[in-house]
Amino acid sequence: MDSANIETARPETGKTAQKADVKALVALTDADMVRVNALITARMQSEVAVIPALAEHLIAAGGKRLRPLLCVAAARLCGTANDNHHKLSAAVEFIHTATLLHDDVVDSSQLRRGKVAAHLIWGAPSSVLVGDFLFARAFELMVETGSLRALDILSKASAVITQGEVLQLMKAFDLNLSQSDYIEIISSKTAALFSAASESGAVAADASEERITALYSYGLNLGLAFQIQDDVLDYQGGDLGKNAGDDFAEGKSTLPLILAMKATRASDAPFWERTIGRREQKPGDFQHAQALMQATGALDASRAVARTYADKARAALSVFEAGAWRTALEDLAAYSVERQT
Amino acid sequence: MDSANIETARPETGKTAQKADVKALVALTDADMVRVNALITARMQSEVAVIPALAEHLIAAGGKRLRPLLCVAAARLCGTANDNHHKLSAAVEFIHTATLLHDDVVDSSQLRRGKVAAHLIWGAPSSVLVGDFLFARAFELMVETGSLRALDILSKASAVITQGEVLQLMKAFDLNLSQSDYIEIISSKTAALFSAASESGAVAADASEERITALYSYGLNLGLAFQIQDDVLDYQGGDLGKNAGDDFAEGKSTLPLILAMKATRASDAPFWERTIGRREQKPGDFQHAQALMQATGALDASRAVARTYADKARAALSVFEAGAWRTALEDLAAYSVERQT
Repeated sequence: MDSANIETARPETGKTAQKADVKALVALTDADMVRVNALITARMQSEVAVIPALAEHLIAAGGKRLRPLLCVAAARLCGTANDNHHKLSAAVEFIHTATLLHDDVVDSSQLRRGKVAAHLIWGAPSSVLVGDFLFARAFELMVETGSLRALDILSKASAVITQGEVLQLMKAFDLNLSQSDYIEIISSKTAALFSAASESGAVAADASEERITALYSYGLNLGLAFQIQDDVLDYQGGDLGKNAGDDFAEGKSTLPLILAMKATRASDAPFWERTIGRREQKPGDFQHAQALMQATGALDASRAVARTYADKARAALSVFEAGAWRTALEDLAAYSVERQT
Repeated sequence: MDSANIETARPETGKTAQKADVKALVALTDADMVRVNALITARMQSEVAVIPALAEHLIAAGGKRLRPLLCVAAARLCGTANDNHHKLSAAVEFIHTATLLHDDVVDSSQLRRGKVAAHLIWGAPSSVLVGDFLFARAFELMVETGSLRALDILSKASAVITQGEVLQLMKAFDLNLSQSDYIEIISSKTAALFSAASESGAVAADASEERITALYSYGLNLGLAFQIQDDVLDYQGGDLGKNAGDDFAEGKSTLPLILAMKATRASDAPFWERTIGRREQKPGDFQHAQALMQATGALDASRAVARTYADKARAALSVFEAGAWRTALEDLAAYSVERQT
């Protein structure tokens, strides 16, 4: 399925196809992100040379920086009068980078952000330890803000993330995983850091409880929409900077797989039983899985679920006055499900 | 060398041999440690069953609980009037357990605390993720104390620990490591958590700056003495609950090895060049290394260095009034270098 098809195939909302982007948000947060990126570079330094080398390999590769951007945007939307969101934003990126380093070791991934995964260059031990280093540095940054509430939000989120990742690991190659199991996993492993990023940004801005709650809800639903689209892209192909097909090879029970297995004809059941149930995969299986996803409409159905969360994210912003920041975050929600990379 | 020989062979101090123990300290901290252990058990729980199972495998195996005990004793020595040291103490044990889980993955260790290493039962991925979970839980506990200073101490220590571990990894199989390189490594990877445990205990007790500094110094020097003795025991054998000989097999540049390589005759140089320099080890090499350590007096010399740090630790306590707590901590310093397990 090519990009044009996806943009127009939106029977659920009936909206005219339009390409959402994050240009406005990137422009609005530009000055803040210059400060955040300087902090990230400064705080990943160490006298032990391999640490900044390994960290920079991953961090300089870029990625979308969505989580730190979210923290900054939340603070600005709440009209922050201080700079604490820069440190929290860098901390959020460090936590995210630490989980990526550990995830790639856990999954034995080959690529990350379009580059060879760090553990294949420096070894799994260094990836594990540098992940730990970045996690510790994240907490140092948070402590410097003096905000116990932000520390509370981000330490709780960190525990939730690891629980989600362990749960995902336990549920790999599970033929019977339900959609609600899946939502539980991605709420923890992905959406928890999105919600913590936006909630802590609001806390840094000394926002009202109503606004803090709204930004928590925005981040949570954005994270769910974002992860579902990520899982769709893993079957759809495209330029995600990681190997399309990884999820299938790892038996990751993602929404496209769950919906395809459920909707598949009886004659296709043995295929899933072999490739997922018995973990016996051979060349061509991934392409056959992709064909079944198309035939069953599992990718479209997954995107429809993603859009319901993107809609909830947008709705959560209704407590804020109209303006450039609110519009930019609304666009981010649309982008999270329309993006092809 | 058997235990009796070690107890009497103390030419450096000229003291009569005596068996130091931690019975008094254990008795004094008993009520506190019941509370700490209850917190540890409560906070390692998770709905994801593998997490408490894996954590309990390691935590229930016991170990010496020296670091949490140190935190409690420091708070009590400073006459604490609150219970924050319980949470900090549990947090210190979680940080330590997280580093053990990750270390065992990094080193591919077979045994830990006399039991099969967790990664061999649940797999390296689970060990990495449960380590992350415990680290996050540690920060949750610290946040609950409301002490930004304790958070600062323990987050900085966590970053320093990982730097020490990476440095150790980089310096493995290094024929030219110096004693000062070694002290730098163990100051980071081991002593940083000992000092953070005792310093944060004093902070939890709202102690004076003089007392906080004294307990920082006590913990730091105790940690150095403790690690050197640990490294001696790895060549001496005995019941350490881990494989004697692991350090040699991993090419870990510990003090006994550094001193033995330095003191060895020219005719023995090829042995070190092969086993450490070129990493070519065969059966019987460890026993030959042990024989060279005996012949060169490297183990005795290492113990002598350990005792200088134990003496510094004791000296740091001079700012405190004489009493049961101070005596118990002095005994702990003696125990750290006399222990055979």
